[in-house]
Amino acid sequence: MLSTDIVDTLVTIFGGGVRFMLAEGKHYKTIWPNKALSGVTIIDQTYLPFEFKLSELTSLDEVVEAIKFMRVRGAPLIGVTGAYGIAIALTNNSNDQSLANAKKKLIESRPTAVNLSWAVTLMFDQLKKEVSSNRASIAWMLAEKIANEDIKINQTIGEFGYKLFHKVKKPQINILTHCNAGWLATVDYGTALSPIYKAFKEGLNIHVWVDETRPRNQGMSLTAWELEQENIPHTIITDNAGGLLMQRGEVDFVIVGADRISIDGNVCNKIGTYLKALAAKAHNIPFYVAAPLSSVDLSYHGENNLFDIECRDEDEILKVKGMDSSNNLTEVKIGYSSAYNPAFDITPAKYVTKIICEKGIYNPGDIGKVLE
Amino acid sequence: MLSTDIVDTLVTIFGGGVRFMLAEGKHYKTIWPNKALSGVTIIDQTYLPFEFKLSELTSLDEVVEAIKFMRVRGAPLIGVTGAYGIAIALTNNSNDQSLANAKKKLIESRPTAVNLSWAVTLMFDQLKKEVSSNRASIAWMLAEKIANEDIKINQTIGEFGYKLFHKVKKPQINILTHCNAGWLATVDYGTALSPIYKAFKEGLNIHVWVDETRPRNQGMSLTAWELEQENIPHTIITDNAGGLLMQRGEVDFVIVGADRISIDGNVCNKIGTYLKALAAKAHNIPFYVAAPLSSVDLSYHGENNLFDIECRDEDEILKVKGMDSSNNLTEVKIGYSSAYNPAFDITPAKYVTKIICEKGIYNPGDIGKVLE
Repeated sequence: MLSTDIVDTLVTIFGGGVRFMLAEGKHYKTIWPNKALSGVTIIDQTYLPFEFKLSELTSLDEVVEAIKFMRVRGAPLIGVTGAYGIAIALTNNSNDQSLANAKKKLIESRPTAVNLSWAVTLMFDQLKKEVSSNRASIAWMLAEKIANEDIKINQTIGEFGYKLFHKVKKPQINILTHCNAGWLATVDYGTALSPIYKAFKEGLNIHVWVDETRPRNQGMSLTAWELEQENIPHTIITDNAGGLLMQRGEVDFVIVGADRISIDGNVCNKIGTYLKALAAKAHNIPFYVAAPLSSVDLSYHGENNLFDIECRDEDEILKVKGMDSSNNLTEVKIGYSSAYNPAFDITPAKYVTKIICEKGIYNPGDIGKVLE
Repeated sequence: MLSTDIVDTLVTIFGGGVRFMLAEGKHYKTIWPNKALSGVTIIDQTYLPFEFKLSELTSLDEVVEAIKFMRVRGAPLIGVTGAYGIAIALTNNSNDQSLANAKKKLIESRPTAVNLSWAVTLMFDQLKKEVSSNRASIAWMLAEKIANEDIKINQTIGEFGYKLFHKVKKPQINILTHCNAGWLATVDYGTALSPIYKAFKEGLNIHVWVDETRPRNQGMSLTAWELEQENIPHTIITDNAGGLLMQRGEVDFVIVGADRISIDGNVCNKIGTYLKALAAKAHNIPFYVAAPLSSVDLSYHGENNLFDIECRDEDEILKVKGMDSSNNLTEVKIGYSSAYNPAFDITPAKYVTKIICEKGIYNPGDIGKVLE
């Protein structure tokens, strides 16, 4: 772990002067390479909202562990982390076997978000053509390019998504979001939260309902924390509450990210997304998905194509980490039966109002055509 | 608190020989009067699943506190507890003012479950006609009668509900339930779980998906604990998971309890129930509600009649209680923004397949007619 007191130095080198999102009053990206190009620094998201901790990853194994253990998470960010993972692996050993091994290990580290295999495969395809001695330096450039493109894509998603806000004719706009598709899920700005940041910057009176997003509470721990840092009005709710809020007219639209989108617009996203989409449909509330085109899986079509959805450890449900009364981060056991923990569900295209990507705003059924 | 080692004596006096539900291998009701008719013993449900603790309530204030703090909860059980509360209040002071005060305080202790005001008003109407000196003894008899009727009602609900199981033609029947509508929510047997207990006893191969039911986790803490005690196969899931399970055909029907039912079949129940009803409808999965007729509110009709839904403390969302690694029951803080915590939602009648009550199985729109 890097102590937070050297953050200034790192930010000066890699992020100073540029507009990145706020954390503890300073501007950050979620990942950046160290000066020697031997590793990357990440925000270890398993400590949020309790502590803001940076961590350095300097080996392939560390990168794989960080993805698996969800120190970095969010479809776009794990894509970028995977790209840097290739660069780190090649820095340590740039031969064919090392490249192939890194590709395999990284893609297997988390199965659902297609951005990971997209970014890693992109790196692999380019680098296998290069001679071994050139690979590491090219890999760092490519990874940096993917990371910078992610930032631009998310800014663009913010611009397009923001245009949808004008359709809401109310003194206050109430937005519901599930999980975290904020800047912590990307390199910067976020996907679903990017239009929210833009709207707030433009002076719109917005308020965000934040689904806590059990079992890992990415809403309560990450989205609420992000919005708090930017002073955007928000309220945490249980995942159970959205239906009632929609019944009462207290939600103007829903916006979420995506881990994988079929070419015909079915959206695989954090478990529980589908229930919100059903409720939105029942109440004629727009349900928007914001994601880069790298989340579209060209081999996936049809709403019943239930590819293997990642099933995670039952302890994510049965144990909870929080601060005890002495301010020690403590894990407590809350459940004693066995638990089943699928991490994603599929929202069929018919429940999705629009998909917002870097190319514009599309009907879900048309998203595959954007890539043609 | 009573220590568990005197439980045998109490069970011998009040429950021995009768078939009540199992807790730690012994048979219990959730509430029973002490021998001197000066108070009642309850299972303090705030300690489950960590400890099985009994507690004695001997004053009106203790009864009100137990209902408010959810040491006893579940619509039928808080109705019965309210009835005993009247008896306890009159034992201490049987004049008109004491009776009126007890009625008011008890009804105000929790607002949503109509069973509470039903039972307390029933007691009040009978007792105000009696001379002060007779009231206490009559009150104990009346409360005992309401408690015993609750047991019979729930057994009958079990019989009727069980008949619906035969419609499922599968080697294993997968049932999803939300919150706790088991014996802990009643005096015995439960409402939604009563047909499940009956089916298991009859040898049906059932498996129960238990929604954890944030924020208070009545599913994970109480339903799972109940089913564990009776060795009924079950698995805890997050409240987010039900949609995916239904998509995959892994839920044969949903069964839940109710806190208040309109005469035209709209069902107020634990927050999140509505989302499961929407998903069940989308997948043509039967959605059953099991409740005594005392849960029907004669003054409530129409799905948009959103009476004041109880909103509870945000700390129920932001803090979680569990066992730390040293086996100490510890509360940890998990969220740092403000939270909004409505406790119930409304499932419109159109999403309810059948309502199971002590008189039979009804279309939701017909439930009011049963009381005519």
